[in-house]
Amino acid sequence: MKDKIEVGVLGATGMVGQQFINQLKGHPWFELAWLGASERSAGKAYREAANWTLDGDIPVSIADQIVHESTPGDAPKLIFSAMDASVAGPIEQSFANAGCFVVSNSRNHRMEFDVPLLIPEVNADHLGLIQTQRRNRGWNGAIITNPNCSTITMAMGLAPLKPFGIKTVLATTMQAISGAGYPGMPSMDILSNVVPYIGGEEAKMESETQKILGDFHDGKIAHLDATVSTHCNRVGVVDGHTIAVSVSLDQSPTINELKDVIASFRGLPQEKNLPSAPAQPVHVMTMDDRPQPRKDVLLEDGMAVSVGRIRECNVLGYKFVVLSHNTIRGAAGAAVLNAELLKSQGLLD
Amino acid sequence: MKDKIEVGVLGATGMVGQQFINQLKGHPWFELAWLGASERSAGKAYREAANWTLDGDIPVSIADQIVHESTPGDAPKLIFSAMDASVAGPIEQSFANAGCFVVSNSRNHRMEFDVPLLIPEVNADHLGLIQTQRRNRGWNGAIITNPNCSTITMAMGLAPLKPFGIKTVLATTMQAISGAGYPGMPSMDILSNVVPYIGGEEAKMESETQKILGDFHDGKIAHLDATVSTHCNRVGVVDGHTIAVSVSLDQSPTINELKDVIASFRGLPQEKNLPSAPAQPVHVMTMDDRPQPRKDVLLEDGMAVSVGRIRECNVLGYKFVVLSHNTIRGAAGAAVLNAELLKSQGLLD
Amino acid sequence: MKDKIEVGVLGATGMVGQQFINQLKGHPWFELAWLGASERSAGKAYREAANWTLDGDIPVSIADQIVHESTPGDAPKLIFSAMDASVAGPIEQSFANAGCFVVSNSRNHRMEFDVPLLIPEVNADHLGLIQTQRRNRGWNGAIITNPNCSTITMAMGLAPLKPFGIKTVLATTMQAISGAGYPGMPSMDILSNVVPYIGGEEAKMESETQKILGDFHDGKIAHLDATVSTHCNRVGVVDGHTIAVSVSLDQSPTINELKDVIASFRGLPQEKNLPSAPAQPVHVMTMDDRPQPRKDVLLEDGMAVSVGRIRECNVLGYKFVVLSHNTIRGAAGAAVLNAELLKSQGLLD
Amino acid sequence: MKDKIEVGVLGATGMVGQQFINQLKGHPWFELAWLGASERSAGKAYREAANWTLDGDIPVSIADQIVHESTPGDAPKLIFSAMDASVAGPIEQSFANAGCFVVSNSRNHRMEFDVPLLIPEVNADHLGLIQTQRRNRGWNGAIITNPNCSTITMAMGLAPLKPFGIKTVLATTMQAISGAGYPGMPSMDILSNVVPYIGGEEAKMESETQKILGDFHDGKIAHLDATVSTHCNRVGVVDGHTIAVSVSLDQSPTINELKDVIASFRGLPQEKNLPSAPAQPVHVMTMDDRPQPRKDVLLEDGMAVSVGRIRECNVLGYKFVVLSHNTIRGAAGAAVLNAELLKSQGLLD
Repeated sequence: MKDKIEVGVLGATGMVGQQFINQLKGHPWFELAWLGASERSAGKAYREAANWTLDGDIPVSIADQIVHESTPGDAPKLIFSAMDASVAGPIEQSFANAGCFVVSNSRNHRMEFDVPLLIPEVNADHLGLIQTQRRNRGWNGAIITNPNCSTITMAMGLAPLKPFGIKTVLATTMQAISGAGYPGMPSMDILSNVVPYIGGEEAKMESETQKILGDFHDGKIAHLDATVSTHCNRVGVVDGHTIAVSVSLDQSPTINELKDVIASFRGLPQEKNLPSAPAQPVHVMTMDDRPQPRKDVLLEDGMAVSVGRIRECNVLGYKFVVLSHNTIRGAAGAAVLNAELLKSQGLLD
Repeated sequence: MKDKIEVGVLGATGMVGQQFINQLKGHPWFELAWLGASERSAGKAYREAANWTLDGDIPVSIADQIVHESTPGDAPKLIFSAMDASVAGPIEQSFANAGCFVVSNSRNHRMEFDVPLLIPEVNADHLGLIQTQRRNRGWNGAIITNPNCSTITMAMGLAPLKPFGIKTVLATTMQAISGAGYPGMPSMDILSNVVPYIGGEEAKMESETQKILGDFHDGKIAHLDATVSTHCNRVGVVDGHTIAVSVSLDQSPTINELKDVIASFRGLPQEKNLPSAPAQPVHVMTMDDRPQPRKDVLLEDGMAVSVGRIRECNVLGYKFVVLSHNTIRGAAGAAVLNAELLKSQGLLD
Repeated sequence: MKDKIEVGVLGATGMVGQQFINQLKGHPWFELAWLGASERSAGKAYREAANWTLDGDIPVSIADQIVHESTPGDAPKLIFSAMDASVAGPIEQSFANAGCFVVSNSRNHRMEFDVPLLIPEVNADHLGLIQTQRRNRGWNGAIITNPNCSTITMAMGLAPLKPFGIKTVLATTMQAISGAGYPGMPSMDILSNVVPYIGGEEAKMESETQKILGDFHDGKIAHLDATVSTHCNRVGVVDGHTIAVSVSLDQSPTINELKDVIASFRGLPQEKNLPSAPAQPVHVMTMDDRPQPRKDVLLEDGMAVSVGRIRECNVLGYKFVVLSHNTIRGAAGAAVLNAELLKSQGLLD
Repeated sequence: MKDKIEVGVLGATGMVGQQFINQLKGHPWFELAWLGASERSAGKAYREAANWTLDGDIPVSIADQIVHESTPGDAPKLIFSAMDASVAGPIEQSFANAGCFVVSNSRNHRMEFDVPLLIPEVNADHLGLIQTQRRNRGWNGAIITNPNCSTITMAMGLAPLKPFGIKTVLATTMQAISGAGYPGMPSMDILSNVVPYIGGEEAKMESETQKILGDFHDGKIAHLDATVSTHCNRVGVVDGHTIAVSVSLDQSPTINELKDVIASFRGLPQEKNLPSAPAQPVHVMTMDDRPQPRKDVLLEDGMAVSVGRIRECNVLGYKFVVLSHNTIRGAAGAAVLNAELLKSQGLLD
């Protein structure tokens, strides 16, 4: 234990904060030693401050930790942010300014030109933005973000196709209720129902995808020049975002070539064997009716994405279904993998 | 009662047959007087032969009717077919050959060039195919079909746009479990889950749409020259197929023009005031998060379709969400409306 | 229309208030002419003030009515109360004091000794308490209440057995999410889950049942001397509370006698043919696996209760399952029936 | 691997068989080396013979094993039976007759007087029946059974109370759909619904409980002299049977005494530290609204039972809620623990 890096979680009492706590339980490199929340919670034991809504109980090592105010003060250098977007902006900046690495799941800074929007398998080189960010802002620390949960899912399915030249993407999501937080979706709105709208989500998916799949040159990101359109829907599923994707490419690979390139897709996390990295980032399902959220969402502990039904699309050329665990691969696990990438690149030394 | 037209239902014991029975309850023109089913059921009272799976009980006037074999014999001239596709083909033909109008919900004859595939608001003129059919086949009767439940939903949303020139359609369905019949989807497969595959459904939606939206000239249908691609999914909803549609058009109407043209869309059923016709075939929802299956599926007794979220699509130009009741507007109600159209056009005289 | 009695709804913007609005739509005797809500809503059109969460849309005749403050002022004499228990107490009293008949669905006054807790089929004679109430409180108006939704369901199943002498009742509920209001149960808490606890519900069912089934003598209620114990659970059902009941009786009727007495149970609402009264208050289901909420909850427009599986219980003698629609028979419909009873007894003249 | 005991599974292709395969994956003592199924499957690779319906994929070590016919022949000595009750009876007997230990999850032999109906924490001494069984039947092998999934759940909750003298038990179950196998419950029957009937289940719970909690003397079981009555219901939950239990006792412990005795309950599996044994067989939940199936069912890998809401019952004295994982603690895990008990008692030597 003594060699582990101490880490903190901002927004520790909310549902995403709870997911971070679960995700960090037993982590081989990181030790959760600092919990930050609002003034109302500060000073209380975590078990008093948090309304634990996840399955199972609060991990024993966390339950009695005292919650801190959300100020850098004695916080560790590596901070995960699970704060609500309504407050995350200035607080994350204050921690970065104080020298912390803020690994954030919040949307506030994602689209800023000098902030990395990372999926380690896809665009680890975007970490180069940290230098730009520090120069611009005069910080010793930095803010690193992961994309929205739907965007990560779709981008993981698209990234292996980038060498073929992605031109247009048209996608329809069927998103799990856990993506809406807690209390989130009222049951009266979603039981035996579909809600064909998620505020702000379509715009996020469209812009974030272009940034993630963009190229890093000369200290900045050239966004991918692809057109993206999405329909976002909420369905009665606990965990797992399923997305039906149609895509047009510059080149004309065969369906089997697509399957091969997706199944063999690997990135730096696999090369470096990062603790949270799945052995195979994107699995190709062969059964007609897979992937399915309830059956496939925990593949490789929820860190692998699955793609199925790769076939021709009359309109755009290719279509497929992609699924991932929205609170693991799409949120807490994504951020932890980002932090592991930081460490493996020597940035935490 | 004495002035009503006697009608029969083939496949009366199955789930779709049960829906026909419910749909015909209290019908002002039609009197359900003949129930046909398999040899195994023939000769039994309906209440013995059928495992009633719909809500509520078997209508009293039906429960004690004796089930007939599926042969024309003493059957009425107007026959609804709710038969399983595995047996519907030759049986429907034998009834048409014997002089019956077979108004079928089965897929067997839908795509035959001389069989009308009708949505009365959209292509009532396709009834002209009956003459072609009779000439070709030497029948006194005829077979008239309604489309697949997803196709009807989407085609109702698209039909008002036809004057703008429909070029390409890319749609993703979220379909209710009632569309799979009974026992249909095992609960273990769909509770808190999405199944991204429905056997044969995508091909049906793609080809049927082109026929429905085609033009009738010189005794035949010129299919619509539009490219259609679909992703079909099953979700945990009891009734109501929700479809996210993107479409490109030859012309460039404004979003408000689209809303107006959809809301003001009317057809022969409205003009003739047919008993099952909704006053407004397609409602335009103004709230961001509508239509929703549980909340909107019973609009105008389940015979109206609702469209919402009409907006621009980066990729194809326009996108929207369309919903209808899959077992009413998409099946039993569709067939009953087809029969009302036959009568209003004097074809049953 | 001109002969209808004008009525008002207190708490009109909440989910129960919305149910009252739906329930009063097209009522033959009552015309909803006054909507009361909190100060925040007063002065606004109803469509602006309310977040309509029920299926379908706000009835046209209501949407543009201006919401009033919750003070008697110009309110009609007959007032339905759908107010939250946190505020209902003094407001309901002020209306009764001002001469209104307050027909309340709130729990605040239910157990007061001089307030009728009515199920018109069961204890219409408890209306006699109004005289006591007026004498005690010096009111021209009165407060009349209906029981909790679970209690109504169970009491309707038990009432026909009262002549056999009810000694002990042990019941387990499986209650719908609509009983928790809106936003009510978070979907994360109930999707694919059971919550074995509903705050305060068990105590309500135990005490209210004794009052409802009690006898009215000399201006007061002698509570039924039966022991009642309940387990209350929330399940993932939209509408309909299902209750498994075991009961011991003083006498030893046969199972068939129980079935007969339940099926033939009638009360004043049937005798007077009140508009909302079901023809048969309690239906006896004969199929082994009924009643079921989704299939049976709308029996007689949601105003009939269904009982099934009447059989022997090793422990208490008899057991059965009882179901009713919690927001109709168990709330808005219950109150409207109470008001119809008031009118039929000449109390509104 | 070479030191492991080879085991087989009868009925390996069905849903319970699949659960056995999952349960035995990575077992420290047992190596699944033989798969038996019907003639139709025999000779095929498991991946061809089985329609895998569980989450995730077929374990790699199993997928290519060739399925055997259900005859003892070359089967290993320790056989798990997941066969359907319609065929299990004579086949299980033939294996026992051939010298196998048949550890069965099927109901066929459970109530036979010389067959142990085991919950290792509760009645390990009932293993003494094996001697009786062998003497009666002239077998070298034996049949050992585990109770029905609901019975196990309830019996685990009741067993700690046995020292206080259990007199009467009245219980209502809310059972998961996975308990009905595959395809099992049609989704049309259970989505947003409750089915208040499970064929044969109530009788099983009532009789099995008396046998399990009975005492072993002189080579036979004296059934517990307690009256048991149950209401069995199916609800829309994937995994986990929740049971509301009322119980009367000879003695009058306080609620705290009950909590203590339940939380400290231990049995032979804990003493012997069997691989599948939970550290604490029955957990006492302190939050008002727990246990809940989705949140608590995987406690101690699904082998621990949870009890909550221990409180007074007006009618029977005490009441509580008990939950367990019906396919792990209630089926495959139960059988594997039974086999571990056999081994730990030297019966497999």
